[in-house]
Amino acid sequence: MALNNPTPLGPWKITAYDQENFQGKRLEFTSACQNIMECSIDNILRQKQEIWAGYEHSSFCGQQFVLERGEYPHWESWSGSNAYHIERMMSFRPICSANHKESKMVLFERENFIGRQWEINDDYPSLQAMGWSNNEIGSMQVQSGAWVCYQFPGYRGYQYIMECDRHGGEYKHYREWGSHAQSFQVQSLRRIQQ
Amino acid sequence: MALNNPTPLGPWKITAYDQENFQGKRLEFTSACQNIMECSIDNILRQKQEIWAGYEHSSFCGQQFVLERGEYPHWESWSGSNAYHIERMMSFRPICSANHKESKMVLFERENFIGRQWEINDDYPSLQAMGWSNNEIGSMQVQSGAWVCYQFPGYRGYQYIMECDRHGGEYKHYREWGSHAQSFQVQSLRRIQQ
Repeated sequence: MALNNPTPLGPWKITAYDQENFQGKRLEFTSACQNIMECSIDNILRQKQEIWAGYEHSSFCGQQFVLERGEYPHWESWSGSNAYHIERMMSFRPICSANHKESKMVLFERENFIGRQWEINDDYPSLQAMGWSNNEIGSMQVQSGAWVCYQFPGYRGYQYIMECDRHGGEYKHYREWGSHAQSFQVQSLRRIQQ
Repeated sequence: MALNNPTPLGPWKITAYDQENFQGKRLEFTSACQNIMECSIDNILRQKQEIWAGYEHSSFCGQQFVLERGEYPHWESWSGSNAYHIERMMSFRPICSANHKESKMVLFERENFIGRQWEINDDYPSLQAMGWSNNEIGSMQVQSGAWVCYQFPGYRGYQYIMECDRHGGEYKHYREWGSHAQSFQVQSLRRIQQ
């Protein structure tokens, strides 16, 4: 059990193995891990309870990956974008605010919460198919729950995790979406289910 | 305009380019294309209307990819599994039966529609989180609409497109899910939205 970075107690549990297909050294975590290298293990593979966010680098930096409950036998099973190849996750934490039924967010056409806006409370595998006019979102206000936005349609490409209890739920520019964000491009998004 | 394989008329349209970022030679399709090499183009990149299924090989074989409306500037933006690397799509067709609101499917624990069953009409980023006991589905009956099943949680890994108007909606063994299916493993699934 590694408790580098205590978080609110919950039913969270994630099991990491240092080899593919759940082989080798095994560690269980019930709270955030800021740097898995300090635990002498470098893979994360079986998610047993609730929702976790995984990160490319230590201290919750770099590409983000939502980890739903289930089995991830190798890195390809959780990685989201091939454009920038990564083979391991270095840090992870529970997503405490995920609340599927109550998730609500407002999308804005431009940064700093200006321009056309759209309040959503559902999943959208293609924002353009549902009436959003282009392939970008300028800014977002998460009113409740947690969301994951994707660069491409069909839940593909870079992932950006947006939570009501981080940044006060306000993401006014792509620079606040995560250290890997390089543009306003978002073409699909969905609620994170607890 | 290539009309190799006429399908029912609909509002379908997909534009393919032979270079990344929507550059180079361009072709528009309004119905299925059985082999894109015959059109002297080998990428598929901008999906303008409704939903298409893309395939790794000609004649709708190999890995499957759901293409929602939006922009796919390079192969990483639509590819679903890195485990078996592919860089192009060879054939594609519209998914005529997609019907988001009316989608209904029954999951069975074992092949040939036996064992525990579960009727669903919603999206499930993690079947295990919603009560399904393991990481496999034995067989499926699509009663209405079209669905996409994924090997891993969070809509990752191999994709299997299931439609009410193919196979009579019956998929009684993984061998009927597609020529790329090698196991019963399914950990997430969702309705295909028209």
